[in-house]
Amino acid sequence: MAAPLEFYFDFYSPYGYLASSRIDELAAKHDREVIWRPFLVGATFAVTGARPLVDIPLLGDYSLHDMQRSARLQGVPFQLPEAFPKAALAPSRAFYWLAETQPDIAKRLAKAVYNATFGEGRDGSDPQLVAELGAALGIDSNELLEAIQRPEVKEKLKHETATAVSRGVFGSPTIYVDGEPFWGNDRLEQVDRWLETGGW
Amino acid sequence: MAAPLEFYFDFYSPYGYLASSRIDELAAKHDREVIWRPFLVGATFAVTGARPLVDIPLLGDYSLHDMQRSARLQGVPFQLPEAFPKAALAPSRAFYWLAETQPDIAKRLAKAVYNATFGEGRDGSDPQLVAELGAALGIDSNELLEAIQRPEVKEKLKHETATAVSRGVFGSPTIYVDGEPFWGNDRLEQVDRWLETGGW
Repeated sequence: MAAPLEFYFDFYSPYGYLASSRIDELAAKHDREVIWRPFLVGATFAVTGARPLVDIPLLGDYSLHDMQRSARLQGVPFQLPEAFPKAALAPSRAFYWLAETQPDIAKRLAKAVYNATFGEGRDGSDPQLVAELGAALGIDSNELLEAIQRPEVKEKLKHETATAVSRGVFGSPTIYVDGEPFWGNDRLEQVDRWLETGGW
Repeated sequence: MAAPLEFYFDFYSPYGYLASSRIDELAAKHDREVIWRPFLVGATFAVTGARPLVDIPLLGDYSLHDMQRSARLQGVPFQLPEAFPKAALAPSRAFYWLAETQPDIAKRLAKAVYNATFGEGRDGSDPQLVAELGAALGIDSNELLEAIQRPEVKEKLKHETATAVSRGVFGSPTIYVDGEPFWGNDRLEQVDRWLETGGW
């Protein structure tokens, strides 16, 4: 099997959510795996000078409209959380804590967090919600809540975010296919084609 | 025939160029016309706080890569002009001057300017180049150069740009389909689908 795709995303990124709902299936079609890599997109704003989409005049209103329209087209539920955006520390740290020993469970938790946040409009940055979603996957809640406070787990997320920026990642989602970067849920058709053809 | 699409674009927008090469054909497939409306995207930056893409760290490098990759995928030539971006006053004014009496020629001039600018990397903001491209379409060069200095022609471009912003346009290209806005060359597949289905 060829090298896995890398899927960089922020848990509070609506377009990351939309991509998350189809990236694994898309890769599997081409006999590829996907490594999920949550990062904090807010950390890139210091480099790019960007602001959260919805805070920008004109662009903010359009983006909300576009997210909803794109979700309907993909056939996935979409509901923006009341407080948006937030720094998604808890789910990102929980993900990396789990990924070391149970990568499949880590990915299932990530999907559950995304679905709660943008499928149901809940607060996906809330450690209690993350623990609750983890419990449904058989993860001990107290253990998860303790783990995401550990210095080495916090450090892992910082390291992954810094690595993302150093590779050139500035937005969520960003997908690497054999080193080739694609930014945006709206580039998945190109990702599909790249996997099909080996590039153009 | 149903209402025409409206195609807002800036003559110095690479993604506007990529959309311009296929918007008329896409619309024609659904028995629609397209009204072209150049505007100055720089005027929206005061509202959105945006900057030219290529000036933004990380995003700038990626965008250049993405423009070239998207152009190759569409099969159109792409060459960024040496001085980029610029305020495309001359071609925008020439367009509106022509559009009043010769809308077909105006559109052909717009395509010629886009092809010179991003197909060949020439300075599409240069009045002399615009006049030269106009001459190839049978437009008197002196008349064109004089027209784009007229107060009412300058005013027309200002008015069209202000109207675009007041409708919510903040980026190039923006396409309206029966009042529904789509931003970006990468939304043309959705435009196609919207025309096919009447919306979703």
